[in-house]
Amino acid sequence: MSEHRKSPLPALRHIAIIGLGLIGGSIARGLRAAGYGGKLSGVVAGDKDVEHAMRLGLVDDCHPRVDAAIGNADLIIVATPPSTMGAVMARVAAHCSPTAVVTDTGSSKGGVIADARQVFEAGALTRFVPGHPIAGTENNGLDAGFAELFRDRRVLITPHETTADHAVARVNRLWEALGASVVTMTAAHHDEVLAATSHLPHVLAYAMVDTLAELDQRADIFANAAGGFADFTRIASSDAGLWRDIVAANRQSVVQTLDIYLMRLHHLRDLIADGEDEAVQTLFQRAQTAREDYMRQRESRHC
Amino acid sequence: MSEHRKSPLPALRHIAIIGLGLIGGSIARGLRAAGYGGKLSGVVAGDKDVEHAMRLGLVDDCHPRVDAAIGNADLIIVATPPSTMGAVMARVAAHCSPTAVVTDTGSSKGGVIADARQVFEAGALTRFVPGHPIAGTENNGLDAGFAELFRDRRVLITPHETTADHAVARVNRLWEALGASVVTMTAAHHDEVLAATSHLPHVLAYAMVDTLAELDQRADIFANAAGGFADFTRIASSDAGLWRDIVAANRQSVVQTLDIYLMRLHHLRDLIADGEDEAVQTLFQRAQTAREDYMRQRESRHC
Repeated sequence: MSEHRKSPLPALRHIAIIGLGLIGGSIARGLRAAGYGGKLSGVVAGDKDVEHAMRLGLVDDCHPRVDAAIGNADLIIVATPPSTMGAVMARVAAHCSPTAVVTDTGSSKGGVIADARQVFEAGALTRFVPGHPIAGTENNGLDAGFAELFRDRRVLITPHETTADHAVARVNRLWEALGASVVTMTAAHHDEVLAATSHLPHVLAYAMVDTLAELDQRADIFANAAGGFADFTRIASSDAGLWRDIVAANRQSVVQTLDIYLMRLHHLRDLIADGEDEAVQTLFQRAQTAREDYMRQRESRHC
Repeated sequence: MSEHRKSPLPALRHIAIIGLGLIGGSIARGLRAAGYGGKLSGVVAGDKDVEHAMRLGLVDDCHPRVDAAIGNADLIIVATPPSTMGAVMARVAAHCSPTAVVTDTGSSKGGVIADARQVFEAGALTRFVPGHPIAGTENNGLDAGFAELFRDRRVLITPHETTADHAVARVNRLWEALGASVVTMTAAHHDEVLAATSHLPHVLAYAMVDTLAELDQRADIFANAAGGFADFTRIASSDAGLWRDIVAANRQSVVQTLDIYLMRLHHLRDLIADGEDEAVQTLFQRAQTAREDYMRQRESRHC
């Protein structure tokens, strides 16, 4: 194995990535940049994308079918949209080697674990490690990824009841090689946290842009929007189909968080309407302080 | 007047800026950078700020009282927070020269015009030009401004019934010297547009951060927030007291827009809860398209 001595993932000789969009494509680029010396296989949707991925040099070999890519892989990373996750996982279960570790990158974990329980037999299930890198941009597709996407980011790992420690360790080394830090939590907790920090903001941003686009003054509204508006609505440029699936996959937590938000927004609306300006300021101030604390934590983490 | 030959505002020999925070301070810096050669006076809240503003070199002379700064000014710019606008305007009316043009930078216009009608006699009122630069950051204070803040931005001018054309022209030249373009509209229309593009997003962002800060998992929520979260919530770092006043000054339009938003968010919430995923996607897609159209317009405007 001397040829792999300098690899950041010395135990791995073959990694397969299913889906080479923003996340999968960034993993591929990041592995190359980190000096991974093993084989890298990819799976994409059709022949045109296979050619495109090969032209970009994302992987050593690329296939439109899961079985052609994963046969001998030590580590299989499923980075496809949530709507295809179940079907992809079934094919992975049918064709992976008996020692392969399988992980995914989906943004809700309860549903993925339920899918995995359906398709993996008990032994293989111990080598399935649900994961979710907290990183992204509003872009997608084969050209969207970049090697630095995961640098200084967190990856949330949500082991299920029978996940084996050695499998978790293998997935952790992947993410650490890409510059991320790994945090472990339960899938239920993950799904609540993500509903709040990611799914709720997307729903609110889509709803707001859609509301403004329906107003009579929409031309003037968009023409006269200030800098803050572009930032606030950036996530509303995310792929609508992908986000339909993400929200559907975490439906219960999303609705729960949305209900809490709606209740509080109604309360704030009434305070504003009733001229309770001191109470409005108190709420704004609490939010301002919480947001500033958050930014301080974030900056200290990145230093 | 040969010493003013190269000034971008040749007709003006004395400009007074009341309030030297983000907006007023950026006007002062921008005028210097644009080569304005006349006198620049400032008004700030107290002796400590007077010293600070002079140390920064924002203006030629600085005062804690309006009357000391505006005596001979050709152009008086009121850039104080909305809550002090009425009182400041009364002092401006009492002390400005009989030919001075007065403008303001407040983010809602109906209330400012009502204030102006109270304090200016009919002749002076014709020289009052309500204005609002669509530019800002989440920062404030004497150090927050910068000369480029208004470059390629819009300034909305909302003349009232008796505003004189020559007064509008003088204010337009100010903003054009700072690199902005001027758009004219009614105050009522302005207040609706701003409620939608600026005040609504701030209210939603404050409400969201406040909601998350109250959840049991708040530590984990903020620790695991992704990049989009920082952008989406940036405006919740804006000054709470200032935004209480802005919302109060445009109360009716804010509540109206908030009610439309709440209705649509309830509808979207029900679609998600009921598993109407196609309809959810349609709404997300409409928003995505509208937001992308907006960004294209914005980029073409800045080229």
